[in-house]
Amino acid sequence: MTTSATNHQIRLAARPVGLPTDANWQHTTEAVAQPDDGGVLVKTLALSLDPAMRGWMNEGKSYIPPVGLGEVMRAGGVGVVIASKHPKFAVGDHVSAGLGVQEYLLIPADQIRRSGLVKIDLALGSLTQWLNVLGMPGMTGYFGLMDVGQPQPGETLVVSGASGAVGQTVGQMAKIKGCRVVGIAGGQAKCDWVVNTLGFDACIDYKNGSVKDGLKQHCPKGVDIYFDNVGGEILDAVLARINRKARIVICGAISQYNATTAVQGPKNYLSLLVNRARMEGIVVFDYADRYHLAVAEMAGYLKDGRMKSREDVVNGLTNFPKALTQLFTGENFGKLVLKVADH
Amino acid sequence: MTTSATNHQIRLAARPVGLPTDANWQHTTEAVAQPDDGGVLVKTLALSLDPAMRGWMNEGKSYIPPVGLGEVMRAGGVGVVIASKHPKFAVGDHVSAGLGVQEYLLIPADQIRRSGLVKIDLALGSLTQWLNVLGMPGMTGYFGLMDVGQPQPGETLVVSGASGAVGQTVGQMAKIKGCRVVGIAGGQAKCDWVVNTLGFDACIDYKNGSVKDGLKQHCPKGVDIYFDNVGGEILDAVLARINRKARIVICGAISQYNATTAVQGPKNYLSLLVNRARMEGIVVFDYADRYHLAVAEMAGYLKDGRMKSREDVVNGLTNFPKALTQLFTGENFGKLVLKVADH
Repeated sequence: MTTSATNHQIRLAARPVGLPTDANWQHTTEAVAQPDDGGVLVKTLALSLDPAMRGWMNEGKSYIPPVGLGEVMRAGGVGVVIASKHPKFAVGDHVSAGLGVQEYLLIPADQIRRSGLVKIDLALGSLTQWLNVLGMPGMTGYFGLMDVGQPQPGETLVVSGASGAVGQTVGQMAKIKGCRVVGIAGGQAKCDWVVNTLGFDACIDYKNGSVKDGLKQHCPKGVDIYFDNVGGEILDAVLARINRKARIVICGAISQYNATTAVQGPKNYLSLLVNRARMEGIVVFDYADRYHLAVAEMAGYLKDGRMKSREDVVNGLTNFPKALTQLFTGENFGKLVLKVADH
Repeated sequence: MTTSATNHQIRLAARPVGLPTDANWQHTTEAVAQPDDGGVLVKTLALSLDPAMRGWMNEGKSYIPPVGLGEVMRAGGVGVVIASKHPKFAVGDHVSAGLGVQEYLLIPADQIRRSGLVKIDLALGSLTQWLNVLGMPGMTGYFGLMDVGQPQPGETLVVSGASGAVGQTVGQMAKIKGCRVVGIAGGQAKCDWVVNTLGFDACIDYKNGSVKDGLKQHCPKGVDIYFDNVGGEILDAVLARINRKARIVICGAISQYNATTAVQGPKNYLSLLVNRARMEGIVVFDYADRYHLAVAEMAGYLKDGRMKSREDVVNGLTNFPKALTQLFTGENFGKLVLKVADH
């Protein structure tokens, strides 16, 4: 059975070489069907735009399968239940799930678990915060920092992509845990914001001056934890400043995602040897059974003002392709969110 | 007070660019002095030749200071006490210490600790085994494997430089701990030896065929631990085959030590992210307070035949410069030892 609504969708039409362009996308429409027994129909309100999306567009083995050609582009999102034949979900419930870049998602009973469908409580955070500090980026930052970074009071933490979704969480959590926190971000406005609003101790503007000099100035005791979202030259610059037993959390490498030549390996990696240091990768899905604990903790910090968040909202499903490229050019300021519907 | 003996020495004359040549060394002689109260005079019997020596010849911060220009080249060695005014060392005692590339070392009372002077028991292993599996390379392999690699029965371990001093120890210890062990070495003879004599499950000859194909063939379940002594292309090939939660022990990068351009960073390092894997450096000195435990364990394995060792002995102090370069061309077969005196 279908409804009278039309579902606008954006599908992966071709695998990109370098930065994605309009040619990589196909805009389609479908009728919206009603759920069968145990199923749920969700209307998308907002989607999370993440650097990881670029990786999902490539062929080949990774931590999850690539998006298939012709498939709706994968995206996490928040929405509202508009029809339900599932006992745990009612019309009007706000939910988070892997909605895809589309206006509606019909989730059959046997796909509920796989879709990651969970109710979200707007008393804990706003819809966009549920895509940011309380969503996947927040979980990535929280568990990457706490489980792999293992911050100790008095240590120095550096985080790249400091004003982005993961960076906001990592830096603020590290401050709460008693670290000296130095961000790396692109442009004065972002740097001012993470220092003045989020309370970082310093921020290095990689677009204006040398990261190497900035690290020397702002990390006088060296670097104990580096949370890396960017890779490339910045990873090498930090490797040259790490302390003994330093931990480098490899969360991403946005500088390399659109590279059309081989990824640039960290040529200073032997600093790991000299400093008995560790470089370790993190994938957020491994921590799914503890998301609720991180959400509870960080919602408390949002409430008492110890954590703040910033989202950069782009309106309209059809603006997805353009918005995604902004991530890689650094045009977004804060967690990039695509607003699809008001309610 | 001096003796009638002459101490032949080899000093660092100039810092090398690329592979060291004769121009980097200066041959000197000194009279041999007698020890004062609390001092010990050691006659060098054999010296350990190690890839790490190349790093010590460079200027700049590392895990230990560089050898100064004009200083006797640093080297670990074994020798015999020929004069002593120290209550714990008697004439005739066999000892291990940082002897340097010279025939005699006079250790004043206040330098005993710094020199690392300890008695060695030839009932536990031969003089050359005390430079190999019971010496620094053995300690490096043991603690790198056990503390950083953390082998579990049934896991697959790959070790490069498999027939070298560290590789021998790592591979045999991993077999004892129940791992599938695959070596990487240069040439059929070395590969045959680690498989037939040391009991590795397989060995990939990097000089004959593709390491990538070899890993595919011999590690059908992927790689859980990689003990890296070489860096470069081989590190990248292994990174492409690691399993979830793999541990990569960064012990050395002999392929890069004589590079005159920038070190080649591992371009496949994002495999750490995809696989939630870890790359961690090790420096043996950190484990000094536990050397005796590793020696006791491995001496037992040497005695009951579960461990074997192979040393490649070059004779004569003056052959030091030539022998050292053999390490980097892979000409040595087994732990490279420079025999300086018979007794």
